Amino acid sequence: MATSTTTRLVSLRRLMQDRGLTAYIVPSEDEHSSEYLSPYDELRPYISGFTGSAGTAVVELDKAHLFTDGRYYLQARSEMDDNWTLMKLGLPDTPTHLQYLSSSKPSRVGVPSHLIPLADFNSLRSQGVNVEGTDDLVGMVWNEEGGRGKRLEGPIKVLGLEFCGQTVSSKLTSLRSSLIASNHQGMILTTLDEIAWLFNLRGFDIEFNPVFFSYALVTPSASLLFLPHGHAENLSPEVRHHLVKEGVSVKPYEDVWGTLGELRKGLLGEGKQKILGGLRTSLKVAECLGVTNLDLARSPVTDAKAIKNLVELEGFRQCHVRDGVALVKYFAWLEEVLEGGGVINEFKAATKLEEFRKENALFQGLSFETISSTGANAAIIHYSPSSTNSAIIRKDQIYLCDSGAQYLDGTTDVTRTLHFGTPSAQEIRAFTRVLQGHIAIETAVFPCGTTGYLLDAFARRPLWEDGLDYRHGTSHGVGHFLNVHEGPQGIGTRKNYDESPLKEGMVMSNEPGYYEDGKFGIRIESIVLVTKALTRNNFGGKGFLTFENVTRETLSLTSHAFQDHHRQRRRALVRATTDSETRPFPPSVCPLQLSLIDSSLLTVAERTWVNSYHRKVKEMLGPLLGEGGRARSWLDRSCVEL
Amino acid sequence: MATSTTTRLVSLRRLMQDRGLTAYIVPSEDEHSSEYLSPYDELRPYISGFTGSAGTAVVELDKAHLFTDGRYYLQARSEMDDNWTLMKLGLPDTPTHLQYLSSSKPSRVGVPSHLIPLADFNSLRSQGVNVEGTDDLVGMVWNEEGGRGKRLEGPIKVLGLEFCGQTVSSKLTSLRSSLIASNHQGMILTTLDEIAWLFNLRGFDIEFNPVFFSYALVTPSASLLFLPHGHAENLSPEVRHHLVKEGVSVKPYEDVWGTLGELRKGLLGEGKQKILGGLRTSLKVAECLGVTNLDLARSPVTDAKAIKNLVELEGFRQCHVRDGVALVKYFAWLEEVLEGGGVINEFKAATKLEEFRKENALFQGLSFETISSTGANAAIIHYSPSSTNSAIIRKDQIYLCDSGAQYLDGTTDVTRTLHFGTPSAQEIRAFTRVLQGHIAIETAVFPCGTTGYLLDAFARRPLWEDGLDYRHGTSHGVGHFLNVHEGPQGIGTRKNYDESPLKEGMVMSNEPGYYEDGKFGIRIESIVLVTKALTRNNFGGKGFLTFENVTRETLSLTSHAFQDHHRQRRRALVRATTDSETRPFPPSVCPLQLSLIDSSLLTVAERTWVNSYHRKVKEMLGPLLGEGGRARSWLDRSCVEL
Repeated sequence: MATSTTTRLVSLRRLMQDRGLTAYIVPSEDEHSSEYLSPYDELRPYISGFTGSAGTAVVELDKAHLFTDGRYYLQARSEMDDNWTLMKLGLPDTPTHLQYLSSSKPSRVGVPSHLIPLADFNSLRSQGVNVEGTDDLVGMVWNEEGGRGKRLEGPIKVLGLEFCGQTVSSKLTSLRSSLIASNHQGMILTTLDEIAWLFNLRGFDIEFNPVFFSYALVTPSASLLFLPHGHAENLSPEVRHHLVKEGVSVKPYEDVWGTLGELRKGLLGEGKQKILGGLRTSLKVAECLGVTNLDLARSPVTDAKAIKNLVELEGFRQCHVRDGVALVKYFAWLEEVLEGGGVINEFKAATKLEEFRKENALFQGLSFETISSTGANAAIIHYSPSSTNSAIIRKDQIYLCDSGAQYLDGTTDVTRTLHFGTPSAQEIRAFTRVLQGHIAIETAVFPCGTTGYLLDAFARRPLWEDGLDYRHGTSHGVGHFLNVHEGPQGIGTRKNYDESPLKEGMVMSNEPGYYEDGKFGIRIESIVLVTKALTRNNFGGKGFLTFENVTRETLSLTSHAFQDHHRQRRRALVRATTDSETRPFPPSVCPLQLSLIDSSLLTVAERTWVNSYHRKVKEMLGPLLGEGGRARSWLDRSCVEL
Repeated sequence: MATSTTTRLVSLRRLMQDRGLTAYIVPSEDEHSSEYLSPYDELRPYISGFTGSAGTAVVELDKAHLFTDGRYYLQARSEMDDNWTLMKLGLPDTPTHLQYLSSSKPSRVGVPSHLIPLADFNSLRSQGVNVEGTDDLVGMVWNEEGGRGKRLEGPIKVLGLEFCGQTVSSKLTSLRSSLIASNHQGMILTTLDEIAWLFNLRGFDIEFNPVFFSYALVTPSASLLFLPHGHAENLSPEVRHHLVKEGVSVKPYEDVWGTLGELRKGLLGEGKQKILGGLRTSLKVAECLGVTNLDLARSPVTDAKAIKNLVELEGFRQCHVRDGVALVKYFAWLEEVLEGGGVINEFKAATKLEEFRKENALFQGLSFETISSTGANAAIIHYSPSSTNSAIIRKDQIYLCDSGAQYLDGTTDVTRTLHFGTPSAQEIRAFTRVLQGHIAIETAVFPCGTTGYLLDAFARRPLWEDGLDYRHGTSHGVGHFLNVHEGPQGIGTRKNYDESPLKEGMVMSNEPGYYEDGKFGIRIESIVLVTKALTRNNFGGKGFLTFENVTRETLSLTSHAFQDHHRQRRRALVRATTDSETRPFPPSVCPLQLSLIDSSLLTVAERTWVNSYHRKVKEMLGPLLGEGGRARSWLDRSCVEL
């Protein structure tokens, strides 16, 4: 059912005309460039009716265009009324909204200055679009019409040192050193996970992401945290004490603009040092500071946050084991239901998985909406079942489950692809190819300085041999009890992945896949840690890295000689350092479906990898599941030697 | 011995002062951005004394700086007198010449406008250097002082259709279509191999590269070839007839500037179509045409030249077999000499190899200076022995031989690393890792659109596992009886390789290596052809590519099932098309040193690859070497099963 947007558009166009604007851009982002939005911030869905996650609306006085990509053509068409023209991005003749504006050249284009990144604004300008920053006109219409509600401002909590492992003052000291090194007078932080990480605080304002609405400004002498009224009023004594102790001053959220204005007047100016902002810093920040007083660069906080400390890594280790227990219980339960002829849909099954996770210590919620998908639904990469429209899980089809949780000690994200009946030869072959790509990433050794852009082909090579491929990245960074997707690193074909070398201490997913439209989908995802590789040589003195995993000790893709060598060096290292530093990092601890593996396609080393992984999974989870019982039986059957 | 540059510098500074210049840049390039220079064009060596291939001189009124990289520190220091300050590029505190000029800001900087690419000139300008194009002041000094000589202007020959496979008119038609498509009025060609290819002519003006000095201008109605006096006067009747038949007009070389000036006056102007130039087009071209009338882009001729036609490919096939015969004769001879206790130096050995090549039909010369290197010399990547200073080849050290030839039907470039005694465990392990990388490239299957930048890690992965690497690219394009190095494609870590997807019909080297300073060097190089891969599936309909080689038919890195499938599809294809299209493309046909391979490190598929390759090499070369005899015996021993 299309949403009626006529009244909304009339109001918006009145506001545009008041300001002399002939076009208005409504981006998809909130003012913090968040991946997931608070419903309060869903301006583009409000004005257009289209609720998909990606898309840009351009409203003119006599027409309105919505630009979105192939994932959303059908949804956008059905959700939008006749006021809107759908622009299908990706088709050869469809311009992007930038190209559209650059060629149609409306006389004055407005865009909400707090929502558009300065970089995007500059692109529009450089393409000759006469664009200017304005107030949030759609928000004004929505407020006027009613029904907008408020942002959720849940409680803010301190994440204790026993979980986060580094004090705020220590993080601030590092940040200030890095600002001195880069010759900046301070930094404006606009991204919510950076602020949560820097101040060792977590919130619940956005679903799945344990963040809270805020801005922050760090200068040599002050660290200011700008919090919305609801938060500031309701801070617990613990949080207040924490902030005071760490020398952080709380200011009202709305005051950030005025503070930036003061900064401009007082500190900045000709020949002075500038203020640093992250790459997605908004036009409004630039307007308040003065564009010449602002430097945009990849945030040093993003870089620091990506390297996990030993306490965070220990948390990751522990929560992944607990998470694995929930997964095994769930898959065992699901198998029993299906074996018994039970009827269960994707959504209800996902709810059951959540229940198992809720039994775990330190559980805080899910880290993203569970992808619980049967058969053809598994081929829809971003599918998630809804409570009202969800398929019955079939025993004779592939079942793909991509899920994760937030724990106080870490964040999980795991995908397993199962088949509870007899998979087809095609499914087995594709699964095996995906598995080979997964193993190729996990066992890669590479020199320091190598980016994920350069490793991506390792994951695809086995699929490519069969003329297969997948249209998503191979890996993203994972936050520590924070956003399940975080930068700057990643493995994939996005060019920006070529700008961030992988570094020791980064925690990342490893998730190649294959999708056969209308039939099935396959993805194998585990979390891995970038760690020093113990190589025989060290060419150029650069050092080498690899991915740590439960099976590393017993693994070699090459000779026994190398294995021995590796084992000896590891033993020496284990003796020399603490247990926690060298204990193998568990990726998502959950068996891989053996009936989907064609072991004749595997090399000897790949087969060894699978068996080692399953041996380790059984060792780690077995004792936690007790003897006998459904889950233990499923685990034992799933971990037999290949 | 340092060259005395005092008089030269006095003269140059006089010319600079006449023009009000306070600094003068002398680049390394000739006006055609050639990789190898005619001695006549070696201006920077003349003015500085430094004869290495890479470096830039900056002369000021009271000082002179020479900027070069780590390969050349010692050589530059010993070749230059006290007038010169050596700037060691690559050291942390050494600025590039651009940074130097940008910070020292001489008041007026000159640079010879025909030698500096417009893009480089613009970089200087954008860094705030007050630079202007001038005459060739160093050339004027050299002409005045004497001893410069002349450019060699050897005979120009027509490369017959039986070798080049496409008429000039057909090439011109394609070029004109592409100019229409890109909305250009014409194209100025400045790169010698592009001109030679376009007009099906070859020359001998530059050592190793069968090109001739020239410019060319192609418009919808005319194709003009600008030839130096020596060439134009001495064109053979065959060449004259060829050019007339193909509608090409010959003009004096020096007239290119005037012709561009005429074009500027007559055809170009506000709102008109521009003239296209390649990425290295000089400032002088831009000055003559008017900078706003010139568009720089990757040359469509470069792109067309990179895709070999069936006749060119057949030529490559045939000349690689003849070249393999010469190599086998050479290695067999060298083994006999060393076994017999003979004393031979690297240079003399290389001369013997050239003699064997000269026995081959259609031989035209070498394609580059032979790298014949023993022991530690093999670790110097760009080493080539000189007649006066060359090491004795030792039986107990690695011998690396990288060599190639020009034939009328193709160009070869092959590296084999041998050991005539008992290699060390370290040498064997490193050689095996290099071999695994070589095989990984040759057997890669990848979707159309993939660049060599993304494939490079396949070659390095086996080395990385041992903490090894190499500091050069993995692959370059190879011309057809043209420059042994040609673009646009390549496999390696240079970012520009990420802009040129590999395409069917490209001929490339495959040459990973490893170098242990002061000890030994290893490189395994063969030539391969990018060809359609016969995959089981065709994801996204993009098509898949691989590298064709002698062993493709019998090779699979995975299952027998895949092998069978592949073989069946190939048979079907063979039935459907002509023999020449499907005959496997031979890479350099010459055995790999078995005593350097540790087969316990190889996978089953890798071992199969080596054995298949050797079986094929023996099949192809055996009959040409006859029964018995030194070379045949060496071949047979070198091709035994691993």
